[in-house]
Amino acid sequence: MKVITLGTSGAVPTLKRSLPAAALQREGEIFLFDCGEGTQMQLMKAKLSIYKVEKIFISHLHGDHVVGLPGLLMSLGQTPREKPLFIYGPRGIKDYVLANKKHLNFHCEYELLLREVKEGIISEEDKYRFEAVALDHNHLSLGYALIEKERPGKFSVEKAKSLGLEEGPLFGKLQRGEDIKLENGKVIHPRDVLGKPRRGRKVIYATDTRPCPGVAKLSQGADVLIHDGMFSQQEEKEARERGHSTVTQVARMAKDAGVNRLILTHISSRYPDDNLLLKEARTIFPSAIIGRDLMEIEVPLP
Amino acid sequence: MKVITLGTSGAVPTLKRSLPAAALQREGEIFLFDCGEGTQMQLMKAKLSIYKVEKIFISHLHGDHVVGLPGLLMSLGQTPREKPLFIYGPRGIKDYVLANKKHLNFHCEYELLLREVKEGIISEEDKYRFEAVALDHNHLSLGYALIEKERPGKFSVEKAKSLGLEEGPLFGKLQRGEDIKLENGKVIHPRDVLGKPRRGRKVIYATDTRPCPGVAKLSQGADVLIHDGMFSQQEEKEARERGHSTVTQVARMAKDAGVNRLILTHISSRYPDDNLLLKEARTIFPSAIIGRDLMEIEVPLP
Repeated sequence: MKVITLGTSGAVPTLKRSLPAAALQREGEIFLFDCGEGTQMQLMKAKLSIYKVEKIFISHLHGDHVVGLPGLLMSLGQTPREKPLFIYGPRGIKDYVLANKKHLNFHCEYELLLREVKEGIISEEDKYRFEAVALDHNHLSLGYALIEKERPGKFSVEKAKSLGLEEGPLFGKLQRGEDIKLENGKVIHPRDVLGKPRRGRKVIYATDTRPCPGVAKLSQGADVLIHDGMFSQQEEKEARERGHSTVTQVARMAKDAGVNRLILTHISSRYPDDNLLLKEARTIFPSAIIGRDLMEIEVPLP
Repeated sequence: MKVITLGTSGAVPTLKRSLPAAALQREGEIFLFDCGEGTQMQLMKAKLSIYKVEKIFISHLHGDHVVGLPGLLMSLGQTPREKPLFIYGPRGIKDYVLANKKHLNFHCEYELLLREVKEGIISEEDKYRFEAVALDHNHLSLGYALIEKERPGKFSVEKAKSLGLEEGPLFGKLQRGEDIKLENGKVIHPRDVLGKPRRGRKVIYATDTRPCPGVAKLSQGADVLIHDGMFSQQEEKEARERGHSTVTQVARMAKDAGVNRLILTHISSRYPDDNLLLKEARTIFPSAIIGRDLMEIEVPLP
């Protein structure tokens, strides 16, 4: 699994930073967080096929986070697509997409599923789920988390053999969680040969927002936290007024929550040199990253 | 005056070509033809200030030509602007812009003047006017022309002196078209010292369209024609069906109309190498250009 920061600016684009969007690539699927203007071009530059985008999560209805949607939906319509496309967002996302579909008179031959959501679990799949969390911005905003389910523990070949099993298809059955009955009538359960279940990964996307308890709680032990880091601590007042965070505030929160990787994004155009922000964040969270367009961050299995 | 081809793709962007837009820079003013997704970033790359954009002309309400408008309008709102911004387009442009303003809840502190127009003169200024021309596409579409007014003829210092005038402020008056009365009662008219009026320049933007008589007529003697050249002549049938032109058709039309510079644009993504199109066009119109993003084409005074 990897995170690709497609657009890392805030409010307005710069020559170096495109408008907000981040991709999460997991086993052939792509999930998109926000879709600022130019996201379809950034996907292309990142060599990520738009046709592999399965779900799009929009944080809020400010233009810098959503103007790239109509163009992406139109481009998706150029090639047949069998799978539906899900778009999740707060109240208003449906009207925005439908109004643009109407005025631009474009058709989605694929199934377009628009989901206006609130806090909580918003999508449940076999191996993972997505949760939404309320943010603290000047406009109704949501953060999102991909949370993988536990994977079975490590298979102990040694234990299996000591129980009389030989390497073969029965190993696979146990690994998949099925009980095995031997010829002598003895039953072997997966728990007899598997170690403790291994935790899944957790990736969180939270912008635009002030630091807020919901994100802090959700971030406990997160593998990756991508968070609003629009300002330096020197602009704390402005950050608060405009509904954003300083990198210092976020570094502290991430440290307290035991986050593994912190990626700060939605960087204000007033910092053409982001080293000031980097130093500030790293004073508190030594491995913090100031997101730059088209960075790829691996999220290894625990 | 110069033309800057900001986005030269058709329908979908490619790694090399952004979505349709062209800028015309004239004496500190910028005019924009179409505003595909990413136009505000392309303006930045071309070192053209968005704050100098005076008028935007939208050809039609297909998304690839217009999705960049909301982002540009929002970015313009970040800095105070005293001048109004004019947007011209066919029926529907007003609803499109207003719907996006509503759903994205953004404000234009500047005066935003939305003008739904038809064929004919749509804007008259001191030194130039803009005309709209009906195109032949599968959707209501307009082409646009900037037409400069005649400039006064060349001032003949020799003639002025022979009429008894001395170099000084009276020269300026005559140049500005005012009559002069000498002390001896003799009147000198501008026509006595000025050569024949000099023609202004004409720049035309016409895409998406099949070749059509309106554009052919308007193109008579044009300095620059920027025209739909989406396909090779081999795809003539497809071009016709989809409401576009082949480069051969346009090269012929431009040659017949005595156009000076021909720029073909809205290039289909099926031609990653545009040399085929270039050769095809140059067989007929030897100086034809296949537009590429961020080309600058000077339009010298005649």
